[in-house]
Amino acid sequence: MPNKKVPGGVTAARGFLAAGIPSGIKPDLSLDLALLLSERPGPIAGCLTQNCIKAAPVILTQQQLKKREGQAFLINSGNANACTGPQGLAHAKSMALAVSAVLQIPIPFVYVGSTGVIGRPLPIKRIQKAVPGLTKKLRKAGHLEAAKAIMTTDTYPKEVAYRTKIGNHLVTVGGMAKGSGMIHPNMATMLAYLTTDAAITPQALKLALKASANQSFNCITVDGDTSTNDSVLCLANGMAGNPVIRPYTPHWKNFQNLLAEVCIALALQICLDGEGCTKLVEIIVRGTKTARAAKKVAESIATSLLVKTALFGEDPNWGRIMAAAGRAGVYFKPEQVDLAFNNHYVVKAGQRIGDHSDRQAKRIMHQKKFTITISLGTQPWSHRLWTTDLSYEYVRINASYTT
Amino acid sequence: MPNKKVPGGVTAARGFLAAGIPSGIKPDLSLDLALLLSERPGPIAGCLTQNCIKAAPVILTQQQLKKREGQAFLINSGNANACTGPQGLAHAKSMALAVSAVLQIPIPFVYVGSTGVIGRPLPIKRIQKAVPGLTKKLRKAGHLEAAKAIMTTDTYPKEVAYRTKIGNHLVTVGGMAKGSGMIHPNMATMLAYLTTDAAITPQALKLALKASANQSFNCITVDGDTSTNDSVLCLANGMAGNPVIRPYTPHWKNFQNLLAEVCIALALQICLDGEGCTKLVEIIVRGTKTARAAKKVAESIATSLLVKTALFGEDPNWGRIMAAAGRAGVYFKPEQVDLAFNNHYVVKAGQRIGDHSDRQAKRIMHQKKFTITISLGTQPWSHRLWTTDLSYEYVRINASYTT
Repeated sequence: MPNKKVPGGVTAARGFLAAGIPSGIKPDLSLDLALLLSERPGPIAGCLTQNCIKAAPVILTQQQLKKREGQAFLINSGNANACTGPQGLAHAKSMALAVSAVLQIPIPFVYVGSTGVIGRPLPIKRIQKAVPGLTKKLRKAGHLEAAKAIMTTDTYPKEVAYRTKIGNHLVTVGGMAKGSGMIHPNMATMLAYLTTDAAITPQALKLALKASANQSFNCITVDGDTSTNDSVLCLANGMAGNPVIRPYTPHWKNFQNLLAEVCIALALQICLDGEGCTKLVEIIVRGTKTARAAKKVAESIATSLLVKTALFGEDPNWGRIMAAAGRAGVYFKPEQVDLAFNNHYVVKAGQRIGDHSDRQAKRIMHQKKFTITISLGTQPWSHRLWTTDLSYEYVRINASYTT
Repeated sequence: MPNKKVPGGVTAARGFLAAGIPSGIKPDLSLDLALLLSERPGPIAGCLTQNCIKAAPVILTQQQLKKREGQAFLINSGNANACTGPQGLAHAKSMALAVSAVLQIPIPFVYVGSTGVIGRPLPIKRIQKAVPGLTKKLRKAGHLEAAKAIMTTDTYPKEVAYRTKIGNHLVTVGGMAKGSGMIHPNMATMLAYLTTDAAITPQALKLALKASANQSFNCITVDGDTSTNDSVLCLANGMAGNPVIRPYTPHWKNFQNLLAEVCIALALQICLDGEGCTKLVEIIVRGTKTARAAKKVAESIATSLLVKTALFGEDPNWGRIMAAAGRAGVYFKPEQVDLAFNNHYVVKAGQRIGDHSDRQAKRIMHQKKFTITISLGTQPWSHRLWTTDLSYEYVRINASYTT
């Protein structure tokens, strides 16, 4: 059975409830505090920022993940609780404590996340005051409010859910995410919360999440180049009643495929909400000697300011793409390079085809979504990732927004 | 005697002549062909792009530099002669031949350079036709026309000259450059032509140029991340009559210091002409265990889109600076980080000082030039480079300009 898209976002899987409210962190009193709860505790896995400067909630999550068990997420937007020192860590713990006290679940089962301005003390009193009311709002239908409550510069909430059959049991993975303008390595924070009713071992969940993140979130950002708060977390409660999934079994492969589908859908929603983004462009690099080489070239193209502005200008400026590929630190022979927009070649064997092919490429660039494929040789490796354009709007948003 | 600024740009040194004319490569018929000539041949040194895709003139220059001798430069703007295959290389050679035939100097003594659109055949006939007229215009006062003729998106010509005394002889270094928006790794091509009347061995010249480029041009771009055409060349004709300069002698140190002064002045002119740039910001990273670590952190900050848009917005958003430092792949302790705008601290020991210091930083950011210093610990290494802001204008220029 193929994966089937289902409504319900982060509460689509059995046993999950959500809520989102305004707690007063954001000055405009929009939603800024989200709570996710599983009826039962279960295994949890996470991929956290590689940034040397980690926000307090990330440091806390890192510690908690060692126990591999969880039941609830409390996430605020409007303040990143980053660069806040020992006080910040105390605040992150207070957030977990607040939920634990009201819901009567162990403190280490409550994971906290933050996104927003860096370096300002978290208004912890407001959060503590808001938590009891928030827990009362927990319900199946709360997924959209929760997805809205974690937004910062996002222009729309991001949620999705897919379902499949694993060993005759329907298993669902749902998720919500925030982040915009993520394509460039050092964009705003990306948070993703995934929930599933699969019965799965902690190790199998960890491996599935890592593989799925590498096929999705890590293809819209650049490895290691993350913000202080980036986090992807997945909680499984086992309520689907399927036989417990163990690593690398056929059931695991089904589950990983399902999880990857949810992660890719969320990642592309983030892409499309790129700050001031008007284009979503798939970059495929082929023909390299190693996977790493293909990745380096793809990232060099995807992060080039000159390429990104050319995408915005709908200018089939393949010279900029070639130059970006050439400076990736990967050796290739220029006379072997083929370059195509969708299935239409503009460069063959390192040389321009002509005015006609440039015009056709320009027509393709008028579309909102298209693919740029660059083949560097005859070797078997390739890499795919997504990028967006760089627009006036991007500069406007980022020049005026205090992260 | 300290270095003294003198007029005359690239022809300030004895024995150099220059000219610039419109040859019809640029559709608007502005200046697009420059010629530089030394009355005598002499040692030449160069630093060329590290890009895997090298333009035809760069490939030719690379070959010629092995002989370490030169006498003339012919440079066109409006067409990069890059990604043009064997025909492009033939065109580059034809350019050298055209000058050689008219001026009666050996072909290998004529170095050629190109900048402009990538992937279009060079209109070689126009250049060949223009060269005889161009040579007739060669004169001492031709430096400004030459500097104008190598411009692409530059909004003003870039030239400078400095003079000092070496062993009781006045030695002059002059230069011209083109390039704008160079700060980000993959900006438009940067070309710099340096001339000197110093008597110097080829090896001493090569070492002096390398050291000077590392203190200047390589501090406004990021190592290895260069366009298809980037070139810095220095020609010495010995007409100052000084005792021949040999590597690492006191005279060499004087000369290197003089050459570096010219290179830094040109590099900062390029910075200030950054495409749509409104700020020139010096980034100093201190306190790292190695020079390489300081450089990595400085480059991570200098190339961060979020930092660059914050500079444009005059937003003292030091959280973005901290995050960019943290993702450089260099380990440091967040609680040891100090961050200052000019001499004014906003972060001490990893934590924000307060509203008052943020406001003071904002006032500093209203200036066109200022310094951001980040200290990561107590180790002895540091690195300095320059960056600019990222403005609406940057996007406008690059979305509409076919490189």
